[in-house]
Amino acid sequence: MEHNLQHTISLLTRTPAALDALLRDLPETWTLRNEGENSWSAFDVAGHLIHAERTDWMPRVRIVLQFGETQTFEPFDRGGHAREIQGKSLGQLLDEFARLRSENLGQLRALNLRQEELALRGRHPALGVVTLSELLATWAVHDLTHLHQISRVLAHQYREAVGPWSGYLGVLQCAGHSSP
Amino acid sequence: MEHNLQHTISLLTRTPAALDALLRDLPETWTLRNEGENSWSAFDVAGHLIHAERTDWMPRVRIVLQFGETQTFEPFDRGGHAREIQGKSLGQLLDEFARLRSENLGQLRALNLRQEELALRGRHPALGVVTLSELLATWAVHDLTHLHQISRVLAHQYREAVGPWSGYLGVLQCAGHSSP
Repeated sequence: MEHNLQHTISLLTRTPAALDALLRDLPETWTLRNEGENSWSAFDVAGHLIHAERTDWMPRVRIVLQFGETQTFEPFDRGGHAREIQGKSLGQLLDEFARLRSENLGQLRALNLRQEELALRGRHPALGVVTLSELLATWAVHDLTHLHQISRVLAHQYREAVGPWSGYLGVLQCAGHSSP
Repeated sequence: MEHNLQHTISLLTRTPAALDALLRDLPETWTLRNEGENSWSAFDVAGHLIHAERTDWMPRVRIVLQFGETQTFEPFDRGGHAREIQGKSLGQLLDEFARLRSENLGQLRALNLRQEELALRGRHPALGVVTLSELLATWAVHDLTHLHQISRVLAHQYREAVGPWSGYLGVLQCAGHSSP
């Protein structure tokens, strides 16, 4: 399936409400636990999504439109969520994510990107040349990567509790693929 | 983390709204496409969740309470969603799932299960002896397995669209683990 800007926006619009419905007021034994060691909890992931709204997607869209391939994107800081989550509740993070996403989508819509602009090229610090279309599709799949991760992190907390059913439950077979 | 009935109910309560927020009115190019061959679309998964509400969780809870290990559960029909989805829209499936889940949780709460009842044993046709606690924990992780699957199935539709970013997106590395 080819990239379609309206389809991308449809998905991006829904993620904050989906995470809100899943996570708000869920007991902290689900939301604050991770998969061990330096892995992320659902709470950490919410902070990461906020950090990406601030520093990744729309800032990079603007760099492509303004400078094309001549200005390399700032590398994304994978530890940047630490600042976002400090002193916050999960409810506050969900509110903040919804607010930032809504603002960013408002700005994206206001750009009124034409089909030919989606082919514009930018420069990623590690991947090299990328298109605006690829950047926008990645924004959506990044949401799905973290929804996939959150469902796995929550399920991990019941790994023992399900007893012999564990072999039937696909999410418990997933060792994780996210560079978290 | 040990099984906790209130935590399980917290999660089970949230799944219908989370799926609704993610999927309702999302373009059909996301919701009706699968991962190829006989794999499931998000629409199929919604039908499967409905079928499990009708025939799996609460019916099995009642068998454990009434007959213990002496009556083996009916095998679950993995193709049972075919009847559920016929002639339905995704919106109708989401409504039906929410209604059945709410009814089932009402019945579960009304049982007022005591801690010692959670240790009661039943008999699964393939797994043998299982406890009521394991059955209820599995209900919750089954939701998460399918949320994990849906995020993967949606992401798959943009596998090409993300271009060189695909290596960074964990959900695209997941080959799937669900017996679907």
